[in-house]
Amino acid sequence: MRTSQFPLNTVKETPADAEIASHKLMIRAGLIRKIAAGIYTWLPLGLRVLRKVEYITREEMNKAGALEVLMPALQPAELWQETGRWEKYGPELARMQDRHAREFCLGPTHEEIITDLARNELKSYKQLPITYYQIQTKFRDEIRPRFGVMRSREFVMKDAYSFHLNQESLQQTYDVMYQAYTNIFNRFGLKFRAVIADSGAIGGAVSHEFHVLADSGEDAIAFSDSSHYAANVEKAEALAPQGERPQPTQAFTLVETPNQHSIDEISRFFNVRAEQCLKTLIVRGEDNSLVALLLRGDHELNPIKAEKIPGIVAPLQFASDEEIIAACGCKPGSLGPIGLNMPIIADRGTVLMADFICGANQDGKHYSGTNWLRDIPLPAQIADLRLVVEGDVSPDGNGKITIARGIEVGHIFQLGDKYSAAMNAAIINEAGKNQIMLMGCYGIGISRVVAAAIEQGHDERGIIWPNELAPFQVAICPMNMHKSDRLLETVERIYHELLDAGFDVLLDDRKVRAGFMFSDMELIGIPHRIVIGDRGLDSGTVEYQGRTDRESQEIPFSEIVNFLKSKLA
Amino acid sequence: MRTSQFPLNTVKETPADAEIASHKLMIRAGLIRKIAAGIYTWLPLGLRVLRKVEYITREEMNKAGALEVLMPALQPAELWQETGRWEKYGPELARMQDRHAREFCLGPTHEEIITDLARNELKSYKQLPITYYQIQTKFRDEIRPRFGVMRSREFVMKDAYSFHLNQESLQQTYDVMYQAYTNIFNRFGLKFRAVIADSGAIGGAVSHEFHVLADSGEDAIAFSDSSHYAANVEKAEALAPQGERPQPTQAFTLVETPNQHSIDEISRFFNVRAEQCLKTLIVRGEDNSLVALLLRGDHELNPIKAEKIPGIVAPLQFASDEEIIAACGCKPGSLGPIGLNMPIIADRGTVLMADFICGANQDGKHYSGTNWLRDIPLPAQIADLRLVVEGDVSPDGNGKITIARGIEVGHIFQLGDKYSAAMNAAIINEAGKNQIMLMGCYGIGISRVVAAAIEQGHDERGIIWPNELAPFQVAICPMNMHKSDRLLETVERIYHELLDAGFDVLLDDRKVRAGFMFSDMELIGIPHRIVIGDRGLDSGTVEYQGRTDRESQEIPFSEIVNFLKSKLA
Repeated sequence: MRTSQFPLNTVKETPADAEIASHKLMIRAGLIRKIAAGIYTWLPLGLRVLRKVEYITREEMNKAGALEVLMPALQPAELWQETGRWEKYGPELARMQDRHAREFCLGPTHEEIITDLARNELKSYKQLPITYYQIQTKFRDEIRPRFGVMRSREFVMKDAYSFHLNQESLQQTYDVMYQAYTNIFNRFGLKFRAVIADSGAIGGAVSHEFHVLADSGEDAIAFSDSSHYAANVEKAEALAPQGERPQPTQAFTLVETPNQHSIDEISRFFNVRAEQCLKTLIVRGEDNSLVALLLRGDHELNPIKAEKIPGIVAPLQFASDEEIIAACGCKPGSLGPIGLNMPIIADRGTVLMADFICGANQDGKHYSGTNWLRDIPLPAQIADLRLVVEGDVSPDGNGKITIARGIEVGHIFQLGDKYSAAMNAAIINEAGKNQIMLMGCYGIGISRVVAAAIEQGHDERGIIWPNELAPFQVAICPMNMHKSDRLLETVERIYHELLDAGFDVLLDDRKVRAGFMFSDMELIGIPHRIVIGDRGLDSGTVEYQGRTDRESQEIPFSEIVNFLKSKLA
Repeated sequence: MRTSQFPLNTVKETPADAEIASHKLMIRAGLIRKIAAGIYTWLPLGLRVLRKVEYITREEMNKAGALEVLMPALQPAELWQETGRWEKYGPELARMQDRHAREFCLGPTHEEIITDLARNELKSYKQLPITYYQIQTKFRDEIRPRFGVMRSREFVMKDAYSFHLNQESLQQTYDVMYQAYTNIFNRFGLKFRAVIADSGAIGGAVSHEFHVLADSGEDAIAFSDSSHYAANVEKAEALAPQGERPQPTQAFTLVETPNQHSIDEISRFFNVRAEQCLKTLIVRGEDNSLVALLLRGDHELNPIKAEKIPGIVAPLQFASDEEIIAACGCKPGSLGPIGLNMPIIADRGTVLMADFICGANQDGKHYSGTNWLRDIPLPAQIADLRLVVEGDVSPDGNGKITIARGIEVGHIFQLGDKYSAAMNAAIINEAGKNQIMLMGCYGIGISRVVAAAIEQGHDERGIIWPNELAPFQVAICPMNMHKSDRLLETVERIYHELLDAGFDVLLDDRKVRAGFMFSDMELIGIPHRIVIGDRGLDSGTVEYQGRTDRESQEIPFSEIVNFLKSKLA
């Protein structure tokens, strides 16, 4: 392609509403243009990237044996009423009436449509398992669309749905999809993690999210530095510390601690590290009761873990100061487990503490030199209550936890019978009886991958695409091509050589100065750049520079194709 | 692909609402399933055909230099208000409000969106001409969706839009698109005609429709039997007859014709052919006037031609019996041009009539032996008023007119400045002045092509696909494969040979009897079928039968690939 036939739409201005790098760069590089809040047109350059994401996804889904279909965007309310989601989904569901006042929504997802298809087309267990997928436009009426195509109202998704006779078959297809997703994200050339996820409102037991790693990511991910373990920070288990509890060495002492409330203040006051302090939090339990949670002073409570413990109200609610004073006889800053008249749950991390500091349940007083068993019995209930931190042992026992930020671009679920039971999607099983099918569902945010790739790969000059997603792999920038027939001829020859070798090449044939070409090619993120000038004609070389290289290097004409092949391998 | 991995969804039943062959066959062959009135899911087999239509279209659009974009389905009302179409479009425009009560439509077409894009991105005449296109989902809230995907509410379109500095440039791109469309429909392998069309409400001067020929088509097309001329019947010109008017041979006579009103009755009464009779019609003119139109008795008035004549009211209105009696002194059955006190416009076909019959403007009386000049002057205004008929000289002078029925699947327009002026889409021209751009637009009904192909190609057993659009090109039907290892091995070998040769092959590996396989493969319309059985193992041959062949033929194993290559060339 030539820039004369494939004009670039690069601009200098960054739109006022663009808050993150990918949004700014997608506008500046001319990948998208805004039509209305959260609604975009993909320009030719952006669409090339989107199509590459689609192409790789489609190829790997086909390899995994999934069957491509195309379901409609317009979905009749009746199907959503069957699953109860017409009422439950809320204002993010874009709804409309047709000219006969029949109600429809613009699908944000297609569980109802595919389950309706499955209950009509699938009759016998012999037709199972089966996986359908589509690459299709979805709609979500976001209250505040932002971040460009990252959180837009109209976007492209790959969504897949599998149907099964039993859990074993569901698990098998789930594993195949997990592998297909791993292949897809590897082929995208992106750093990513498959993380154990909370399946949340969509239901079902097992669920993984696929995150593209990027500092700007909305989610924190805990992963092992030496194994495949990865989980949402909220979901990552903190193992019980190994080893023996140290023997007491200090006397158990009540100390006056005027105006010392927080762990920071207490650790400074006693001149100990935060991990020598015990943190006591009071939360609401069932039937208006209160429950005390104990954590090591340097650890943070993970509310998602706490609210899953029987007897604790979900979502988690902290007791008010007044309730604490009434129940414990002191303000929150002096709380401790000793003499507390309520159920106590201790985090695993507190069990090996010794000679620790804790509140005395009297305002302005703490105990120092506290030791389990000697001064206070170990709480009856020990649980995993805290957020994992860097350096924790990985929950699978292999290596240590590292924490990174990620952007969720894929999600796979085992739905079980949530939709198939509600819609009576049954087949005849081997025993000749009706049986509700089990379902899995598997999504990739196709448009979102484009933005996530930019969040992961950019610098102050523009986008840095991986080879597989770049709109063009190689840019040819001729210097003053139009002034020299000899140069023109060489440029054309090399351009066609590269095309013939199968590269995606953009020849910048604009009559603009070199600096202008370079800054455009850097902004749009072409991974490999070749400069051909008069000087190179004499030496028979081009100047090659990778998008992230600090220096250019000279490559003889005869070696360009092989050189680029090795770069793109 | 194997039917075990690519299950067919063929069914015996034809849905009650399916009125035409393509709708019935798309359901029976398992290409689509209905979700709601006019809303369908494309099943894997149907989607393969749809994707082939898309692929060919995209490839030819790219070759023609058009740039692919992807515009949103959701379009803000504000843009449609700029062109006035928000009010004018009527209830076929699917409208909705978002959660903030802002109005949107689901685009049936994208003139407003692309013109908004063009006015923002195009600044200088140097950027022109430029053509954008997309392959995208469109919505039309049909009052009565029918005929399956032929007239549905959600469908896939290829729409393209070009922008120009002047008419010459618009005409050039229009010609390029005309050629691209010709290439596309040729590659589809469909019999089609590019016909001169009325550009109607969309506006603009020049317009062609691309019709797939099929007996069930909604439109009548007049085309030459020896040139490329083709036009909608309404648009086709009837040339003036060549030659000399015969000399009068009969006396001009007033004849009593009691109860003889229609041309049929008059020609029987006088025992002459209808073409010896003159037909007089009275239509409404401007300012409540009346105008008489004269046609040869065997010719039909074309109202679209008549209403374009200055002085005649559009849309065409016929005078009532009362008005005719008041103005002419007789009922409609006795009308004629002699003594008529109103403007008279004669069709070209009447000019060479001689010794003809016409009404005498007295009830129950006609003149016979009427001759122009001798008995009545030729009307001052001679025009093309009639519908063409088979056998007419083609308007380009080459060959004779044939009339066929067609399905409109493509339409190209010269829009002129209709949208660009309304939306102030201007660029800076060579003189440094603002200038409104001219536009062309070019559509192909991608989903509709699939249905039209079936309307053109089917028989009582099912679909007959052209090679290029068939979901699979070759079906392999093994006889009792599962009972013979030797056969199994040969089938697998031939299957892989055909795959390696690049054919789209479907291997029917179901344990079903041959007749069942054959009827499925005929229903889904696979163009080429290979049967491999025990008998062929001995002779080293397969049985080949094309979808429309009456007989099968034996092909040696070693020749199958070359044989199929010749069939698919």
